[in-house]
Amino acid sequence: MIPLEFTITKKGKGLARMGRIETPHGAIETPAFVVVGTKATVKALTPEQVKELGTQVVLGNTYHLYLEPGDELVRDAGGLGKFMHWDGPTMTDSGGFQVFSLGAGFGRGNTKFEATVAPEGGEEQERLATIDEEGVSFRSHKDGSSHRFTPEKSMEIQHNLAADMFFAFDECTLPTAPREYQVEAMERTHRWAQRSLAHHKKFEAGLPAEAERRQALFGIVQGGRFSDLREQSARTIGKMAFAGFGIGGSFSKEDLGDTLALVNKILPEEKPRHLLGIGEPEDLFLGIQNGCDMFDCVLPTRLGRNGTLYTARGKINITNAKYVRDFSPIDEDCGCYTCTNFTRAYVAHLFRAKEMLAATLASTHNLYFIVHLVDDIRQAILEDQFDDVRARFLAAYRANN
Amino acid sequence: MIPLEFTITKKGKGLARMGRIETPHGAIETPAFVVVGTKATVKALTPEQVKELGTQVVLGNTYHLYLEPGDELVRDAGGLGKFMHWDGPTMTDSGGFQVFSLGAGFGRGNTKFEATVAPEGGEEQERLATIDEEGVSFRSHKDGSSHRFTPEKSMEIQHNLAADMFFAFDECTLPTAPREYQVEAMERTHRWAQRSLAHHKKFEAGLPAEAERRQALFGIVQGGRFSDLREQSARTIGKMAFAGFGIGGSFSKEDLGDTLALVNKILPEEKPRHLLGIGEPEDLFLGIQNGCDMFDCVLPTRLGRNGTLYTARGKINITNAKYVRDFSPIDEDCGCYTCTNFTRAYVAHLFRAKEMLAATLASTHNLYFIVHLVDDIRQAILEDQFDDVRARFLAAYRANN
Repeated sequence: MIPLEFTITKKGKGLARMGRIETPHGAIETPAFVVVGTKATVKALTPEQVKELGTQVVLGNTYHLYLEPGDELVRDAGGLGKFMHWDGPTMTDSGGFQVFSLGAGFGRGNTKFEATVAPEGGEEQERLATIDEEGVSFRSHKDGSSHRFTPEKSMEIQHNLAADMFFAFDECTLPTAPREYQVEAMERTHRWAQRSLAHHKKFEAGLPAEAERRQALFGIVQGGRFSDLREQSARTIGKMAFAGFGIGGSFSKEDLGDTLALVNKILPEEKPRHLLGIGEPEDLFLGIQNGCDMFDCVLPTRLGRNGTLYTARGKINITNAKYVRDFSPIDEDCGCYTCTNFTRAYVAHLFRAKEMLAATLASTHNLYFIVHLVDDIRQAILEDQFDDVRARFLAAYRANN
Repeated sequence: MIPLEFTITKKGKGLARMGRIETPHGAIETPAFVVVGTKATVKALTPEQVKELGTQVVLGNTYHLYLEPGDELVRDAGGLGKFMHWDGPTMTDSGGFQVFSLGAGFGRGNTKFEATVAPEGGEEQERLATIDEEGVSFRSHKDGSSHRFTPEKSMEIQHNLAADMFFAFDECTLPTAPREYQVEAMERTHRWAQRSLAHHKKFEAGLPAEAERRQALFGIVQGGRFSDLREQSARTIGKMAFAGFGIGGSFSKEDLGDTLALVNKILPEEKPRHLLGIGEPEDLFLGIQNGCDMFDCVLPTRLGRNGTLYTARGKINITNAKYVRDFSPIDEDCGCYTCTNFTRAYVAHLFRAKEMLAATLASTHNLYFIVHLVDDIRQAILEDQFDDVRARFLAAYRANN
């Protein structure tokens, strides 16, 4: 029933590996950075621009697409890829993270930590998603309307969205949650993983035998910041018949590498591993070295829209006065569309003038930077240059930061 | 000193003509629709997208670029085209219209008629641009700062912007202004035209003989809605050594065709004529039939950003509920990027979700529609089918409107 093929083509430094995932919509060379297209659009970019910058695979958000335009509409349009005119591989997440952050923190933005802060004048009871064994009831961050996700519902939504890869429904706990609660949530996530898998199997069994399109279901390892729980979760989820695995929840910079090593040593080697929602340059090196194959993160586009741009010499904010008359490219070493054709002065002008092209050029540059950084790391694995490439990159990147 | 060559290749119905303008940055087949890139960007589009939709020439706004990022910065970047990465022909307007509408109606939006309404709580004196024989003092619509344009200053700004075609400084009167004032303003515009021309000649004389880049200065015919004043203005401006002519000021749907015929019969036949700020489909037919060669208008992009889309069967608003599940293209007869690759349902979703790609897809479609309509009219002139093409187009276009 595994609808994707994963081949490891080379092993590298630590747990690092280079590989290839074959999906019904084309191959993904791993390690790969997955570009986020939350509401069936990578913000401010056409699919052609997304492809041109080197993107191999796009991830849509189940929570957002369920609320707007609705997963049944996306199904009727032919699935996420067809709806948004992206013909390459696609992914959807489980909806779990957004339900607990966005849904729970109704109207309060969408960081992992938002729900720890009580909304002004709001009732504690009002802002929380309500979790029971069956599923989660939550309010839409858009209009406050009530909704309910269960593992089965998440599967149904994601079947409608019809991405090549999708995720079992999980509970994403707050990093501040006590151990006792982390245990409870993790065990529930394991039961939900079983239910997700069972529901997906039933769905697949109902498909005509010759149906060529199959979706690959990934299970999610949780366990928060407790290494024994991470280990337990990796063992439990790793034994289930998933096509691949996601690693979810929160980490700190200090324990990220160790936790990933611990988890990835347990997860079956022959299946791909996706580190959910993490994608800063330092973390990509750490994740790859410790056995992760895919990464997704909204930071490149979100930072870009705020004028924060990656360069080989660290991040810059293009709205800073010193760039107003700077006729050099954003990053002299960068081969992206923006750096090839426009100056810092021009991009700075677009931001000051609040022109929409600012977001397009900034997002293009930041995504190109991150996607190609992962490509470079893949090449480094192939050439046994991982340590050198990392040392060189980080020395320059941290110099001005 | 004429830095462009205009060749009439075919004459058609009424005063219609098909031709070709050669500029230092390439040729423009006329009649042509000029795409507006107010602040050195066609809103929400990359220059490649602008080119791909069929654009031949882009117009930047002198008033806006003078305020932001400043014409000297654009000069130092290599001129408007280089700054914005548009390698085709460029134009700038005189700044006159915006000084009197945007500048005068400080903070009040930018229609021609805005300045007739007193800003809430504002002083009459505060909101008006102050005109004297030498020039105009006005306030920035952005921050209220004081500025002054004279014909000489407008030339200097436009030399810095360095577009292939640019305009003499003119006064754009309100359509409600009394005849007495229209006469006064027109006569002043004629004196300003002489001063613009003189200042430009002096500038050109100072250029090295081998300087290959020359800018073509266009004079502007004014006269408001009085046909004897239009006639007088056409005679006066038409005799001056301009490379081409703009027709400015306000019209009504009823007198547009007659006024243009009157003016264009007087203007020298061998020079191109640009109808300023007008570009609705009906008006394009009328303008071409009555001897205009170029048109510019912000409507295609401005309407597009609001969800109003041109179709062969009239305008539609894509945010209307009936398009939410409509999986057909915006216009089945349209060959644009948007119609080729996306459905109404998808574009409707982008507008509802307030995604930036909405503006990109809508602007692409609307500009393609208008640019190709003018292309079709040009072809109709070539094939002596002007009346048929117009009748067929308008019958369908007005059917649902």
